[in-house]
Amino acid sequence: MLHIGALEKLVHELSRLPGIGPKTAQRLAYFILKTNNDYPEHLSEALLRVKAEIHECPRCFNYTDSDLCRYCEDAHRADDSICVVEEPADIMRIESSGAFRGRYHVLHGAISPLEGIGPQELKIKELIERIDEGIKGNGPVIKEVILALDADLEGDTTILYLAKQLQGKGLKLSRIAHGVPIGSDIDFIDDRTMGRALQNRVEL
Amino acid sequence: MLHIGALEKLVHELSRLPGIGPKTAQRLAYFILKTNNDYPEHLSEALLRVKAEIHECPRCFNYTDSDLCRYCEDAHRADDSICVVEEPADIMRIESSGAFRGRYHVLHGAISPLEGIGPQELKIKELIERIDEGIKGNGPVIKEVILALDADLEGDTTILYLAKQLQGKGLKLSRIAHGVPIGSDIDFIDDRTMGRALQNRVEL
Repeated sequence: MLHIGALEKLVHELSRLPGIGPKTAQRLAYFILKTNNDYPEHLSEALLRVKAEIHECPRCFNYTDSDLCRYCEDAHRADDSICVVEEPADIMRIESSGAFRGRYHVLHGAISPLEGIGPQELKIKELIERIDEGIKGNGPVIKEVILALDADLEGDTTILYLAKQLQGKGLKLSRIAHGVPIGSDIDFIDDRTMGRALQNRVEL
Repeated sequence: MLHIGALEKLVHELSRLPGIGPKTAQRLAYFILKTNNDYPEHLSEALLRVKAEIHECPRCFNYTDSDLCRYCEDAHRADDSICVVEEPADIMRIESSGAFRGRYHVLHGAISPLEGIGPQELKIKELIERIDEGIKGNGPVIKEVILALDADLEGDTTILYLAKQLQGKGLKLSRIAHGVPIGSDIDFIDDRTMGRALQNRVEL
């Protein structure tokens, strides 16, 4: 519809990004065309650099541009507890809370039969290996595993699966708490969250 | 905050796009990292192709990848009327209505003293030249100029300026109508639009 091959190609590629529809992609493409500076070159270079420089940390599968990621490399973190997350971006949320000073393990997704994602598509085998290496004395002994997965069906399914797999390994296994978010009005909390908040009430 | 140079660079470049904040840029960057295919290469190539292949039509300043744009080249369009628009993307809206079969002229913006955009930053001199060439007999004679500019302060200012500049050139000069959009509920129309709709009422 734009009748210019290169412009149509750019709109097509941009609209493959999540949350970018054809209309937004077209607006972005026209913006890129209109910039009289080196922006297209800079963005293009940034895209290729990300692909060339960043890989998964061989221990925890977070993204990194060095041998190990900064959380695996940091000598000041506790070696005996692992926080399991779905995506590398989740680590930042946990880090900025300042409430966890152990190691991480990124699953790169959650079990979702609807999308055809089973346990073998995730870094679950590698998590179990990390724990087993500690038991065998080939690595740090893991005493606690905290599951910080999304509070949805896929997250719950993955938690159930992991709980079964990690049974009998002498671990303290927990999931992060569900409840009323800090600063929120009780009136606006949905039924399931309120149910959980009551169920997991904390004694004073 | 991401602690990975290449990733931070990509987030920075993406967040320069209109409507893409730092949070969205981060989500897009992680999506690009997660794709295991050639997407970064494809998008990068598309960006460079757009820059290399597309330029402004020397006659109407629409974007094109050939010598003249497709609307200037088309032998079946009326040579004596020009529709003036702010941006190349506006041409598509007019074309898809099917109500205009003349030529176009893209100003590449509108007069905006607040943003420091004066008449000399726009393709106004070139529009007047196109009309003058017709008067001199060096090009097609222009009989009608339709101003299809945005219905905002900048558009209005530009229309006033153009009307003054094009005075005495024997042209039929008009602007597109403002009024109630087709299919809309009278109840939801703002005061200024309703004022215009009443003022410009059409006799039956």
